[in-house]
Amino acid sequence: MFESAELGHKVDKKTYAKTVPTLRADLLDTQYDLMQSGRFPVIILVNGVDGAGKGETVNLLNEWMDPRFIETHAFSDPTDEERERPPMWRFWRALPPKGKIGILFGNWYADPINRHAMGKTQLAELDWHLAEINRFEKMLVDEGALIFKFWFHLSRDAQKKRLKALEKDPKTRWRITADDWRAAKHYAAHVEVSQHTLRLTSQGYAPWTVVDGSDERYRAVTVGTILRDSIRKRLAWESDATRRITAAPILHPIDSGNLLNRLDLSRKLARKAYVEELETWQGRLNLLSRHPRFSKLSLIVVFEGSDAAGKGGAIRRITASLDARHYQIVPVAAPSEEERAQPYLWRFWRRLPRLGGITMFDRSWYGRVLVERVEGYCSEADWMRAYAEINDFEEQITVAGVVVVKFWLAISREEQLRRFKEREATRFKRFKITDDDWRNRDKWPLYEEAVCHMVDRTSTEIAPWTLVEANDKYYARIKILKTLCERLEAALRGKD
Amino acid sequence: MFESAELGHKVDKKTYAKTVPTLRADLLDTQYDLMQSGRFPVIILVNGVDGAGKGETVNLLNEWMDPRFIETHAFSDPTDEERERPPMWRFWRALPPKGKIGILFGNWYADPINRHAMGKTQLAELDWHLAEINRFEKMLVDEGALIFKFWFHLSRDAQKKRLKALEKDPKTRWRITADDWRAAKHYAAHVEVSQHTLRLTSQGYAPWTVVDGSDERYRAVTVGTILRDSIRKRLAWESDATRRITAAPILHPIDSGNLLNRLDLSRKLARKAYVEELETWQGRLNLLSRHPRFSKLSLIVVFEGSDAAGKGGAIRRITASLDARHYQIVPVAAPSEEERAQPYLWRFWRRLPRLGGITMFDRSWYGRVLVERVEGYCSEADWMRAYAEINDFEEQITVAGVVVVKFWLAISREEQLRRFKEREATRFKRFKITDDDWRNRDKWPLYEEAVCHMVDRTSTEIAPWTLVEANDKYYARIKILKTLCERLEAALRGKD
Repeated sequence: MFESAELGHKVDKKTYAKTVPTLRADLLDTQYDLMQSGRFPVIILVNGVDGAGKGETVNLLNEWMDPRFIETHAFSDPTDEERERPPMWRFWRALPPKGKIGILFGNWYADPINRHAMGKTQLAELDWHLAEINRFEKMLVDEGALIFKFWFHLSRDAQKKRLKALEKDPKTRWRITADDWRAAKHYAAHVEVSQHTLRLTSQGYAPWTVVDGSDERYRAVTVGTILRDSIRKRLAWESDATRRITAAPILHPIDSGNLLNRLDLSRKLARKAYVEELETWQGRLNLLSRHPRFSKLSLIVVFEGSDAAGKGGAIRRITASLDARHYQIVPVAAPSEEERAQPYLWRFWRRLPRLGGITMFDRSWYGRVLVERVEGYCSEADWMRAYAEINDFEEQITVAGVVVVKFWLAISREEQLRRFKEREATRFKRFKITDDDWRNRDKWPLYEEAVCHMVDRTSTEIAPWTLVEANDKYYARIKILKTLCERLEAALRGKD
Repeated sequence: MFESAELGHKVDKKTYAKTVPTLRADLLDTQYDLMQSGRFPVIILVNGVDGAGKGETVNLLNEWMDPRFIETHAFSDPTDEERERPPMWRFWRALPPKGKIGILFGNWYADPINRHAMGKTQLAELDWHLAEINRFEKMLVDEGALIFKFWFHLSRDAQKKRLKALEKDPKTRWRITADDWRAAKHYAAHVEVSQHTLRLTSQGYAPWTVVDGSDERYRAVTVGTILRDSIRKRLAWESDATRRITAAPILHPIDSGNLLNRLDLSRKLARKAYVEELETWQGRLNLLSRHPRFSKLSLIVVFEGSDAAGKGGAIRRITASLDARHYQIVPVAAPSEEERAQPYLWRFWRRLPRLGGITMFDRSWYGRVLVERVEGYCSEADWMRAYAEINDFEEQITVAGVVVVKFWLAISREEQLRRFKEREATRFKRFKITDDDWRNRDKWPLYEEAVCHMVDRTSTEIAPWTLVEANDKYYARIKILKTLCERLEAALRGKD
């Protein structure tokens, strides 16, 4: 894998002097076109052997292009705000928006590689991380990102020579630390892990480019040329729409039975029983939220359901038993401008709670496979891939200690009509029915199909869906509170 | 100040039962109107004596209103990301956007009051903080915010009784900590500081409301009623535009001399001297940026200037001597949707560097008194108050260890014309001249006046403006690099 990069590639001074002026001018223009188009983000990953010129090359890119539209991020120790969230959170924060270039040093590869090279992980764990990374990058690409992955390589001897040279020069001595020499000692182990990593993560949609780091002119021209040509090529695409779907067509219902119409929506709870149960479960939830071990996890509750299914009311029965200082509620409507410039999951990543926190989503990332699917706001390919992307997302956050509880509030079409009519007569403006509500109602069968597909594909052992029979509000609220308590109790037991 | 709040106000059960249903319904409708209008944010500050029902009242407000559109924040120990920025940064992060309600516990009053009550600060320091707070709140109000400041009070005896009651009940025992009893011991000192604070910070635009905390029904009805009536009243305003200006009219130039036309724009540097000086100053800047004490401060460089004055080129001469991992450049264009929902300084607060970081602003918060003033994007009252707000902002960040260096790049009208024409002939798309550029050029005298006013009002001992004669790019770039080095050297000496 690194053979070619150990040949000692070189660009002589004369060729360099001839090449660079055009390359710089081209890069600048390309960068400007990218910015003007605002069509996609360019993500440049910079990794490799110490001393192979990573920093120098990035500085040169900033010199050649307009640094005002490049965001460079290096990741040292995570801050405490980062440590209290899933490991990928800090990288999501650093993703460039559409039209910009983001250069990420170290990035999501550094930790898995270093930990394995130092013998802290088994191969299986490394591979688990690499598979996760592959899926993450695939998602970024499907969301439109253009990803470059540069691996700066040096042979063992070349590295030694280079570190010595840097150390000798008073101007660069500061750059070489004891850590660098220590890492150099483990060169062989490091290269082995790197090869393995590159092999497993070089994919057609985001291949690695190994760069011979021994000659600075060669490095610079190589990286600059690849960037120019690939961004140009991508800008020449007529559309950024996701490709055709190669999957088998989605199965439309063959018989009339489905998850929703098999629910027994006649379930009811009498007012008296409700008042008693409400007190019991709210008290229990209150105790659980103050459990000492709660500070080691965080809780995300997702509410989905048809219009007027009672999501707001259910949320208020939960918050009534919590301290307002410990929860946030995120009502999900149309994404903001900044959110639209990022992958669709970005706006949910940015709202993840810290440890000990509770976040309730009133509608959620499932909008992708519900309203966006049914209303045609995204392509079939987009929502088809979303199931796996969402499962990945939920895996990442549950592994990091987030308890994810998801509710679908199911009401019958007749019950919805009854509630719509009731609302039309109410004095509360917030309950007023809009034209949109009536339009959505007309698409009932389409939504029903989307819900069944969603549950089939995203109800997992780590984040199962709870379908709530919600024609009777009392019954629904108690079921929700009870489910929440039980999931929390199980999670807190696990933290023993 | 607290006399009225020690009378033991009460609302009896019957009155409460009669009042609350209407109050709740009204609050909900008012909240919904606020959200629909998206006109202004509502900021609710909650402070006061321990045990006076702060938490209970906020929880009740969340129950009465729709918690999905209320953001409640409590501030415990700052995170490391917060500690590495000016103290107010964490509160700016928590400000609610227009249309929403933000409840802030503790907030910017907690620290000054507690520190003084514990004898850690002199009265002068407390008063300095309170004056800063007054100016900050005035700015929020002028930016449209509706601020409520609730002080929950309890007499000494009432507090003791309440803490004992809470401790006795197994359901609430967890809430009383040793800290609470310790604080209660210093009741007298605490009340004295609080009185002083309330007196100095109760202003017409944001008065304190002292709430007798001894009766929960009284507390709730008081707070709920004030909120409802004030938000309603504010929504009834026909316009949110800032009031008339009461200040003396701004002085238009009487003679023809001004800061800009007195500059000697013929200053030049020959190419050879430039190349030598460039190397010297870039080298020096590089060393300074790697100075061990640099990690104790951060650097903000502001670039302002006419179109084509050479801001981009100057920035690139600086970045060429820095490591891309240590700086960020913020090109300032139109604010995003999320930024427009906040006070105008918010978008700059969110980009403040951490300690050891460098942020360069290509245009900045000074847009308020330049382009926004000249183009009429804000009212005269808005930009008139901006000078003082900006000085406050810069004081807050410099006190926290940020070195602020500000450059105005001055070119003559003829030189701009020459550069515009040159750019029209260039192949670089990024240099193309737009209609806007020509239009701005027509307003040259207005911009000139605005620049002079800006420098007169915001060139301060803590953050002086450097006017750069920029007709000659070589001269300008060296002057900028040299100034930057000198300011940094002085700051690093100060960190000895």
